[in-house]
Amino acid sequence: MPPSPDAGPAPTVDQATVDQATVDQATVDLLGLLAYGELTAFERMATDARMSPTVADKIALAKMAAAEFAHFQAISDELDRLGVDRELAMAPFIAPLTAFHNSTAPADWLESLVKAYVGDNIAADFYREIAARLPSPSRELVLKVLDDTGHAAFAVERVRAAISANPTVAGRLALWARRLVGEALTQAQRVGVDRDALTGLLVGVGDLEALAAIFNRIMAAHGRRMAALGLSA
Amino acid sequence: MPPSPDAGPAPTVDQATVDQATVDQATVDLLGLLAYGELTAFERMATDARMSPTVADKIALAKMAAAEFAHFQAISDELDRLGVDRELAMAPFIAPLTAFHNSTAPADWLESLVKAYVGDNIAADFYREIAARLPSPSRELVLKVLDDTGHAAFAVERVRAAISANPTVAGRLALWARRLVGEALTQAQRVGVDRDALTGLLVGVGDLEALAAIFNRIMAAHGRRMAALGLSA
Repeated sequence: MPPSPDAGPAPTVDQATVDQATVDQATVDLLGLLAYGELTAFERMATDARMSPTVADKIALAKMAAAEFAHFQAISDELDRLGVDRELAMAPFIAPLTAFHNSTAPADWLESLVKAYVGDNIAADFYREIAARLPSPSRELVLKVLDDTGHAAFAVERVRAAISANPTVAGRLALWARRLVGEALTQAQRVGVDRDALTGLLVGVGDLEALAAIFNRIMAAHGRRMAALGLSA
Repeated sequence: MPPSPDAGPAPTVDQATVDQATVDQATVDLLGLLAYGELTAFERMATDARMSPTVADKIALAKMAAAEFAHFQAISDELDRLGVDRELAMAPFIAPLTAFHNSTAPADWLESLVKAYVGDNIAADFYREIAARLPSPSRELVLKVLDDTGHAAFAVERVRAAISANPTVAGRLALWARRLVGEALTQAQRVGVDRDALTGLLVGVGDLEALAAIFNRIMAAHGRRMAALGLSA
């Protein structure tokens, strides 16, 4: 992975300067990012299912993976509807998403559960913040896809049980979650530098204070998930 | 993998001696075998998708994998309907299916395509022969699941194109297909020795000639698929 250049503080731009062309490129970018994100999440979860200690766990993770593929299909269909080549739309995000997954390959079953829960949800929160600024009906589609997870309870229950059986596990998993967030931020910054239209949507919120509020919302939700797992954020 | 004992020729048993209890255990066995077969096929295809040379190929293999998971769901639901614990039903088949996949891990994208096409279809043909002897509605469900593949064209097209670009590939892939069949037969024999009820259904066809006919049908279909790929069987 090449070192990410310093993005520096986002410049403040008035919402009115975000014109239709920018929004359209941003829509394509977000859909492309989401599509490839779901496709790689599918692949990685299905691969991680091989580490599952029981058949029931294997089935649960495989089900989560299959749901990710259904999401990929929904996003791909939306790109088709917009007349956008889905491979072209995904292309800019292959390198950062591959780099993220390569640098965060879970070493065991618990790490893969934490990645599925913490990693997926922090990404989803970030996508949601951008999606809220997209035109209809892409906005509604993206928000619907992001809401359809429903696998939180499974991961939380398994991780809590593992910590309860062996409390020393908590320290290792908390470090792991921190690494996941760090790598995600590194790649998000890389995407932000390369994709002006996507960044433009967030910059379009008007001021650094609003941008900080978005970041704080995402990190607060992350903290609640870590607490649910029984891990210190 | 422990060496499989020699199963020897199957004894001839009259169809009438295959009583209801045997058929019921055979139904549970076949559904359990199929369920775990679909689950592992899902896992392996999704893993193999990481070797795909293009995003389009990755999507195509991921789609095949997701279809396998849908099949797993359908078979699991049938086990639920019969009041059978699905994990207990799958348990006897974990070792042979794991051994099969561990001994046939594709080294590259073309090997994974040949495995998805040749391996899946020869297994499907074998399951179909057994399923035809199951009671309704399990019979219809299994036959429906087995028919819903529709990914043949993709694998055939890719493998033929690869051979056309580099004819020396054909020899290697033909050897690979032969190894797949050999490993599948080894594990099928292992299952046959362990699972009397399942074997009983096939033995119930009445005589060795009928059993030979089943084997010949399966191998003839395999030969046609190899020819479709441009490989010598």
